[in-house]
Amino acid sequence: MPREFRLKRRVNFYETDAAGIVHFSTFFRYMEEAEHALWRESGLTIANRGVDIGWPRVSAAFDYFRPLRFEDEFEILIRIEEVLEKRIRYSCTLFHDGEKAAAGSMTIACVRKRPNEPMKSTPIPPEILSRLLAESGDPQRS
Amino acid sequence: MPREFRLKRRVNFYETDAAGIVHFSTFFRYMEEAEHALWRESGLTIANRGVDIGWPRVSAAFDYFRPLRFEDEFEILIRIEEVLEKRIRYSCTLFHDGEKAAAGSMTIACVRKRPNEPMKSTPIPPEILSRLLAESGDPQRS
Amino acid sequence: MPREFRLKRRVNFYETDAAGIVHFSTFFRYMEEAEHALWRESGLTIANRGVDIGWPRVSAAFDYFRPLRFEDEFEILIRIEEVLEKRIRYSCTLFHDGEKAAAGSMTIACVRKRPNEPMKSTPIPPEILSRLLAESGDPQRS
Amino acid sequence: MPREFRLKRRVNFYETDAAGIVHFSTFFRYMEEAEHALWRESGLTIANRGVDIGWPRVSAAFDYFRPLRFEDEFEILIRIEEVLEKRIRYSCTLFHDGEKAAAGSMTIACVRKRPNEPMKSTPIPPEILSRLLAESGDPQRS
Repeated sequence: MPREFRLKRRVNFYETDAAGIVHFSTFFRYMEEAEHALWRESGLTIANRGVDIGWPRVSAAFDYFRPLRFEDEFEILIRIEEVLEKRIRYSCTLFHDGEKAAAGSMTIACVRKRPNEPMKSTPIPPEILSRLLAESGDPQRS
Repeated sequence: MPREFRLKRRVNFYETDAAGIVHFSTFFRYMEEAEHALWRESGLTIANRGVDIGWPRVSAAFDYFRPLRFEDEFEILIRIEEVLEKRIRYSCTLFHDGEKAAAGSMTIACVRKRPNEPMKSTPIPPEILSRLLAESGDPQRS
Repeated sequence: MPREFRLKRRVNFYETDAAGIVHFSTFFRYMEEAEHALWRESGLTIANRGVDIGWPRVSAAFDYFRPLRFEDEFEILIRIEEVLEKRIRYSCTLFHDGEKAAAGSMTIACVRKRPNEPMKSTPIPPEILSRLLAESGDPQRS
Repeated sequence: MPREFRLKRRVNFYETDAAGIVHFSTFFRYMEEAEHALWRESGLTIANRGVDIGWPRVSAAFDYFRPLRFEDEFEILIRIEEVLEKRIRYSCTLFHDGEKAAAGSMTIACVRKRPNEPMKSTPIPPEILSRLLAESGDPQRS
């Protein structure tokens, strides 16, 4: 069973647009917020200052089913779907009022960052790997 | 040939994040910015106050190839790939320094908005349709 | 004693910029977030759909003392400093690690919104006034 | 005469909120956008990678007179009001349809950034100072 995390949230006013609903770009911020909460839950931080490892996004997508509005309470479910040597793939679902509001996915890459050099893909450090895979039963590692 | 539009842009500081690059959610705003410029180029506005037609996003996705940084100049190419009875599908590519920085897509739906009612999918009004299809040679209408 | 509310918060990654700290514009969003939480605590919502009353900002300011960074936990203290016939004035302080990170203020106006008319300043409705002033001991009403 | 710069801009959809107007926090981003354009006009960049000088904001404020809406075209006038040894103070006015939409101010500090040390206030480097003061006739230097 893949590792997952649920985050409860309320829509902030500045996340809405003139159509009266949450702007579609904001859902990607919600997904990231839940991702980072999942990392913290695992005893990790995704942006470790002083460490030259980074986690840029390789791809991200959302399908939108129902709009969210100011002050709506909703839940973000983020799930690690796959852990590869140098990448992690998540799925993400937003629920509001018992209905699916949106479903997304995101793939991130592990990179080494050196000053004045381009980011370079690198294997996920073992100590991060073991924490991400801990308690998660049977993640789809490949 | 599908209708397209090119928008030149420079990265603003508030669009970057602590990784020193443009936040991945910002690319969706770039795509929307180019979409709306395309509509204006067609003599249209996508958010017509006083009109009960709206254009919520049905899906949106990006693949990220190269990071953008503060003050980078880049180009957004947005293209109408498909116009259906009630939907429009775009593709979008960002170029920087002669290289593809990211490639995305987005589908929007035409809806009728009535106060205190849920948004309801509706056929694209003919006057919008004709403008979107004008000058576009051979759009993939279906 | 003026009515106040405290909101605990953690810095999200998308709130930082390439300087590695929370972007200065984000503090205004934090202030608004706490303001709306204060209204909810008073049994109110500041954006009541179907009601023609709105609350645009008249002025807003922040002094910045210490930067906030990704995942920092901080507290927002918002306080109603003054309630006038058509305006409300708040003060706002952000605390992090036992130190003041920033201090701000904001004045909002009560306006009547009619379709296709400019917003017009109007007295605060009595039912909102009484709730905002409830439990607040001795607010500086004038 | 203080040095100034004018930037023309159009409101993007993602800059509006559910009240149908530009969110008040966005004006601070407009002010920063014009500031950075002024620096570029002076042959400078405010965020020079590889250099340990930074420019955090010390204070920022706006008074709002008229709302801006989606696709409104407006002008941002930014002006260097004062250059001190370690600080720069700007004023900023937004014009729309021949009227003042908002008026703001911002003070920034010159700091030295060393890894894992707090930012420390430092005199503005001479080469930056001379460029900022060039062509500006009689700036209020003190």
